[in-house]
Amino acid sequence: MKNETKTIALDDLAVGDRYLSREFPLDTAKIKDFARSFDPQPFHLDEGVAAQSFFGGLAASGWHTAAITMRLMVESVPFADGLIGAGVEISWPRPTRPGDVLRAESAITGIVPSRSRPDRGIVTLQTDTFNQNGEPVQKLVSKLLVFRRAAD
Amino acid sequence: MKNETKTIALDDLAVGDRYLSREFPLDTAKIKDFARSFDPQPFHLDEGVAAQSFFGGLAASGWHTAAITMRLMVESVPFADGLIGAGVEISWPRPTRPGDVLRAESAITGIVPSRSRPDRGIVTLQTDTFNQNGEPVQKLVSKLLVFRRAAD
Repeated sequence: MKNETKTIALDDLAVGDRYLSREFPLDTAKIKDFARSFDPQPFHLDEGVAAQSFFGGLAASGWHTAAITMRLMVESVPFADGLIGAGVEISWPRPTRPGDVLRAESAITGIVPSRSRPDRGIVTLQTDTFNQNGEPVQKLVSKLLVFRRAAD
Repeated sequence: MKNETKTIALDDLAVGDRYLSREFPLDTAKIKDFARSFDPQPFHLDEGVAAQSFFGGLAASGWHTAAITMRLMVESVPFADGLIGAGVEISWPRPTRPGDVLRAESAITGIVPSRSRPDRGIVTLQTDTFNQNGEPVQKLVSKLLVFRRAAD
């Protein structure tokens, strides 16, 4: 488990390194606020409609779950130059609900140094987001651009 | 180009169907608001730090670009039961900047009826998000759960 301040460079990383986030409590107001701005579908905004929908009750937008997960990653993954994503894959195995308390577990599953640019590499980070019951609500695989420590 | 109201079911879809969104103007305040909530990294929050970063200037969080794209998809892709994502792949070929005007072009690239549940299928939707110069800022491939028209 890494717990340093944000001075971690590509040189310091190894496959298997893991990072645990804090907990993030979610409520109905936050779910509806996000949905109003970015995903205004009835099953994210209206309890009555949501109960009759595929979700069987109010559910957070998957993009809200993703955004919360990013917040938790920024706080818990201490790469010196930040989290710069080239691309991601996401799946949402179950809905995120009002009252859920989310946390994110990240693990490095790959490190590929750039052949053309020796100052950098691509790190594959797998981040699973869990609710308070330990059930996964999102699985994220990120390709992150990470730099080596400056030579000076 | 589809332009109906939201009564489109799985039965009505064909590979090649396309949907164009309206334009969404982005500014510095929106970029910083989103970043403060969900991606509080200096290159999304501070022009001075951003100028010295990999991004060479203030850039929107990729998750902000994704959330805006979802908003544009909800408005432009008229599936009757909504946009229910099972999973997505995203890449961000270039940053989104203050002053950018985004639009999203979606196209159906695959339709796979469920073998176990005849009332539904998985539709692959490819959504490219462009800035005002026609440059892609995000490429999104979504696997969406779409239902057939109810038999009654």
